[in-house]
Amino acid sequence: MTAHGLIRTDLALEAREALLKEARREVAGIETSGRTTAHTRVTRVKVTSEAGARRLGKPPGTYITIEAPELRQGSRVVASEVAEVLTAELGALAGLPEKAGILVIGLGNWNATPDALGPRVVDSVMVTRHLFEYAPQELKGGLRSVAALAPGVLGLTGIETEEIVKGVVQHIRPDLVVAIDALAARSLERVCTTVQLSDSGIHPGSGVGNKRLGLTAESLGTRVIAVGVPTVVHATTLASDALDLMLGTLSRADGGGAKLAEAFTPAERQKLVQELLPNHWEDLFITPKEIDALIADTARVLASGLNAALHPRVTAAEGERYLQ
Amino acid sequence: MTAHGLIRTDLALEAREALLKEARREVAGIETSGRTTAHTRVTRVKVTSEAGARRLGKPPGTYITIEAPELRQGSRVVASEVAEVLTAELGALAGLPEKAGILVIGLGNWNATPDALGPRVVDSVMVTRHLFEYAPQELKGGLRSVAALAPGVLGLTGIETEEIVKGVVQHIRPDLVVAIDALAARSLERVCTTVQLSDSGIHPGSGVGNKRLGLTAESLGTRVIAVGVPTVVHATTLASDALDLMLGTLSRADGGGAKLAEAFTPAERQKLVQELLPNHWEDLFITPKEIDALIADTARVLASGLNAALHPRVTAAEGERYLQ
Amino acid sequence: MTAHGLIRTDLALEAREALLKEARREVAGIETSGRTTAHTRVTRVKVTSEAGARRLGKPPGTYITIEAPELRQGSRVVASEVAEVLTAELGALAGLPEKAGILVIGLGNWNATPDALGPRVVDSVMVTRHLFEYAPQELKGGLRSVAALAPGVLGLTGIETEEIVKGVVQHIRPDLVVAIDALAARSLERVCTTVQLSDSGIHPGSGVGNKRLGLTAESLGTRVIAVGVPTVVHATTLASDALDLMLGTLSRADGGGAKLAEAFTPAERQKLVQELLPNHWEDLFITPKEIDALIADTARVLASGLNAALHPRVTAAEGERYLQ
Amino acid sequence: MTAHGLIRTDLALEAREALLKEARREVAGIETSGRTTAHTRVTRVKVTSEAGARRLGKPPGTYITIEAPELRQGSRVVASEVAEVLTAELGALAGLPEKAGILVIGLGNWNATPDALGPRVVDSVMVTRHLFEYAPQELKGGLRSVAALAPGVLGLTGIETEEIVKGVVQHIRPDLVVAIDALAARSLERVCTTVQLSDSGIHPGSGVGNKRLGLTAESLGTRVIAVGVPTVVHATTLASDALDLMLGTLSRADGGGAKLAEAFTPAERQKLVQELLPNHWEDLFITPKEIDALIADTARVLASGLNAALHPRVTAAEGERYLQ
Repeated sequence: MTAHGLIRTDLALEAREALLKEARREVAGIETSGRTTAHTRVTRVKVTSEAGARRLGKPPGTYITIEAPELRQGSRVVASEVAEVLTAELGALAGLPEKAGILVIGLGNWNATPDALGPRVVDSVMVTRHLFEYAPQELKGGLRSVAALAPGVLGLTGIETEEIVKGVVQHIRPDLVVAIDALAARSLERVCTTVQLSDSGIHPGSGVGNKRLGLTAESLGTRVIAVGVPTVVHATTLASDALDLMLGTLSRADGGGAKLAEAFTPAERQKLVQELLPNHWEDLFITPKEIDALIADTARVLASGLNAALHPRVTAAEGERYLQ
Repeated sequence: MTAHGLIRTDLALEAREALLKEARREVAGIETSGRTTAHTRVTRVKVTSEAGARRLGKPPGTYITIEAPELRQGSRVVASEVAEVLTAELGALAGLPEKAGILVIGLGNWNATPDALGPRVVDSVMVTRHLFEYAPQELKGGLRSVAALAPGVLGLTGIETEEIVKGVVQHIRPDLVVAIDALAARSLERVCTTVQLSDSGIHPGSGVGNKRLGLTAESLGTRVIAVGVPTVVHATTLASDALDLMLGTLSRADGGGAKLAEAFTPAERQKLVQELLPNHWEDLFITPKEIDALIADTARVLASGLNAALHPRVTAAEGERYLQ
Repeated sequence: MTAHGLIRTDLALEAREALLKEARREVAGIETSGRTTAHTRVTRVKVTSEAGARRLGKPPGTYITIEAPELRQGSRVVASEVAEVLTAELGALAGLPEKAGILVIGLGNWNATPDALGPRVVDSVMVTRHLFEYAPQELKGGLRSVAALAPGVLGLTGIETEEIVKGVVQHIRPDLVVAIDALAARSLERVCTTVQLSDSGIHPGSGVGNKRLGLTAESLGTRVIAVGVPTVVHATTLASDALDLMLGTLSRADGGGAKLAEAFTPAERQKLVQELLPNHWEDLFITPKEIDALIADTARVLASGLNAALHPRVTAAEGERYLQ
Repeated sequence: MTAHGLIRTDLALEAREALLKEARREVAGIETSGRTTAHTRVTRVKVTSEAGARRLGKPPGTYITIEAPELRQGSRVVASEVAEVLTAELGALAGLPEKAGILVIGLGNWNATPDALGPRVVDSVMVTRHLFEYAPQELKGGLRSVAALAPGVLGLTGIETEEIVKGVVQHIRPDLVVAIDALAARSLERVCTTVQLSDSGIHPGSGVGNKRLGLTAESLGTRVIAVGVPTVVHATTLASDALDLMLGTLSRADGGGAKLAEAFTPAERQKLVQELLPNHWEDLFITPKEIDALIADTARVLASGLNAALHPRVTAAEGERYLQ
């Protein structure tokens, strides 16, 4: 994605920013639009061509980003607003008919806090599929059939997540799969302040746990909307930023500094970063101390937005009523 | 099962005892044998005919019960012995070839303590299936390919457990499914002191949560061994016992007492029990105060016995090494 | 409390009902008044004399009971109403000046679900004492200084709860201690549907875990308000009820029945109950299957009511905002 | 501690290494000795003078470090060895008489995974103080009176940890306080592979959560042994390392490079690090992805070593028997 390949982001918005910085102009095949609400900024990045997809490093599709920097301060006013914006954007992206059946998949490892976001959201999703079999008609008005599953990760089950999800999808045949995942961001400011929705599915190598799976319309035979929130920054990103900052400072110096800075090739930078981090620890994350509480808060916001988007009778405020 | 139909047990051993008491002689189609170790008693009840199955209320198959009343006192010597007996009996019942692949299913609701036994065992099963794809041959010696899954319950996922398990079985095609479940017993003394193994699978209506599912060779297309431990007694069982005790006392009295006792028909007893318990609370359990700790201890015993039975290189003592 | 001494209740309301049934008239030294709201009934039992206290088996003081049978169905409307009533009643009982400092104590064992109510409430109390040292004056308006502690139980810490609480009270010198505890009730209908407030403190032998401690104005040197919710019924209570029901049925029969029923003395009934329950299991509880979820819901209601009562700026609805 | 004051370590061993590097010779008032076992290296740093203490940035006392790099791979052989070494070193440092009473304090925030080590250890300490009051003499042989408490952190309780611990110490008057804490290290390799014991107590500003408290012989009136394990590296440490590495690389270059490197004063480096990290996020940690499992494993090792050190009848292997 970036010059020296050490910086990893799951956010299309960040990939686009990096690309813009590099290309210094808008790139063909990538369309961007946006709107703001009182406490959020919504950006829609549409990747419309294979060329755009290649340049961005993200498959074609729509990527909606909801940014709310104040979310981290625990304000419930901001949390409610993000849930409402999520309800609206997810509703528009999904375009669900009233009788649709939805399967919510909470990806990630419930035993690793920053990767536990998906399972935590699934805990609070308002599950109704089993009621639909028996419930009288009047109860169904305004509710859709929703099932939810946290399939765990390969190290916990010995089974590829994709295998579990495929098996369930084949049995219950939902009209839509909504997959929740914890993401890695480029910038610490994004941790638990940004929500990304996308209709291009989940692709191998994305997410906090570096999953090998793909969950896409092709692999599952049903539409997939991914909902992700950055919960970590990779340590390599910070190390790489430190080097960039230093080189930037040198470049601005007179004389030999600029020349020296140029002398560091991407390969040399990568080597320096690898020297900094123990190579046997594959995944080193930077997280704020309060990550456990941030994950809990973020799961609440996602679940209330989701409950209201999936069940037309439920508002985002009520969506929370079903949360533990 | 009993005269007034209010007492529910998932243990073949208890069903047999009740039947013997009623029939006052051994019943055709039900064979029993046993052995003892220092701290356990092992009983094998074999249901060999459909007639026997009907009388016992349990499908044909082998039911092995390991009883260890001292287990409840937290003795690790007894716990280790039970794990070893479980390893031996499960090994003999399963008769696994070295290259067999096994899927362990932890039934039950992780959010309801007495029903969380299965998921807790799955947490500590030594999962290896994902390693087999990449591991060099020498690492595999003495290990079998084991996957493990806690599918949750209908109220949590909106999906019948059977649907999830079937989907996974169809994808990974194990040679054996081992299903762990929390059971209801007839007697409080059995809670977390008795382990039942059986090769007849899991049948609808059994277990703590009154599951509607069946997991059998017929439904899954693969052999199923069920491992269960009673974790609760139903409140109806205690209420019913209280009435029986009173009637027994009356029967032994002279004069009108015996006559009165006889006057209480099973239907009348059932009515009395229903008066005692609020009818809108379907499942009332009797549990000891320390149930949370008992479930944790029992899950350790099952997991260490299981790990040693499934992986020939691992002993029951080592089985514990992999537990959290 | 009752004729045969096997039934244990921590609720003054139930003790009074049993007493009324026995005495068949109002008892001197016990005053009762009440009010209702849309979904709750509030009863105030005032024990005004030592004679009344002896007869009731509860020390002198005011006992306020909030009954809301619908609370168990998970309705958020009812939950909000109970929280508001709790705010009002606790506020009236406590009569706190604006600058009061409060210490909330969550009694009970966090490792035993039905006894974990107190610690769960403490998790969600809006703690402010540490902010008061540094915060600018305008932030303090409408907030009181609140500290909160879950001291655990003797079996977890090796320390009497009373010793821990006393030590903390001596250091931080609060104006009021609010002690939250899980109670035992006489009737299953009361489990997680009734809240009792009292200004007489916590007395040895009360609560789910049969604590040996006392937390009273005398022992702590500061006012104590106890807030309790029944989370279990003792198994002896159910067994005893079963015998009573049977004897009642016999009494209504003609002839020998009535005579026989009378022949069962309280001592004989107690012996029968002891026969029913294994004597080495001291505490057997009857709980609904969904007890884990009920405890979580009840802790939310108490914490939101408490937050609004302790912090005048916070409403009961907002009280929830601070809950996880 | 280091030239530019951005690197924070709670380990005397690391402080000494940094000091040695700077001073290029042994420092007066600091004595070092060591031994090795099959999988561990034990180093004893003794700070014998106030001058040594000032230079090291650690108060006078004995600091024992047990290093076991293989611990992170989850080997139970290594884990058992570390527990045994901990038992021996803690026993020698504490020099406890048979009848001593000990209070174990688990510092840290149970809601923040890397800071939850202390509370997790307390969960598994074999608590006996409450048994000593009633137990027959023969049961006490080989056991000491042990109490244990996790006092939480200021943000959870509103009470300074020191106030809670002081209150309890004054009531139960132990002969020794053992305080368990999660530490910050200089190097990622140390995370969950190094144990530090010290008899100099806990000092303000140490530990993961940057506690403001001190727990020392002076403040508590009883001896204090601190047991700590690094569970995080501060993000500032990594950022600072990245700059150092770059400057080192430049210094080795010809021409202007060396000159440029020298031009970066400590103050300039600090400014660069601050540019890298968002200033409103006080505590950013680097942790491995598997931190939750590492904390659980480390708590087991500490608890089994502790149980054997405190209770002479218990061996390190048996110490584990009491763990959940």
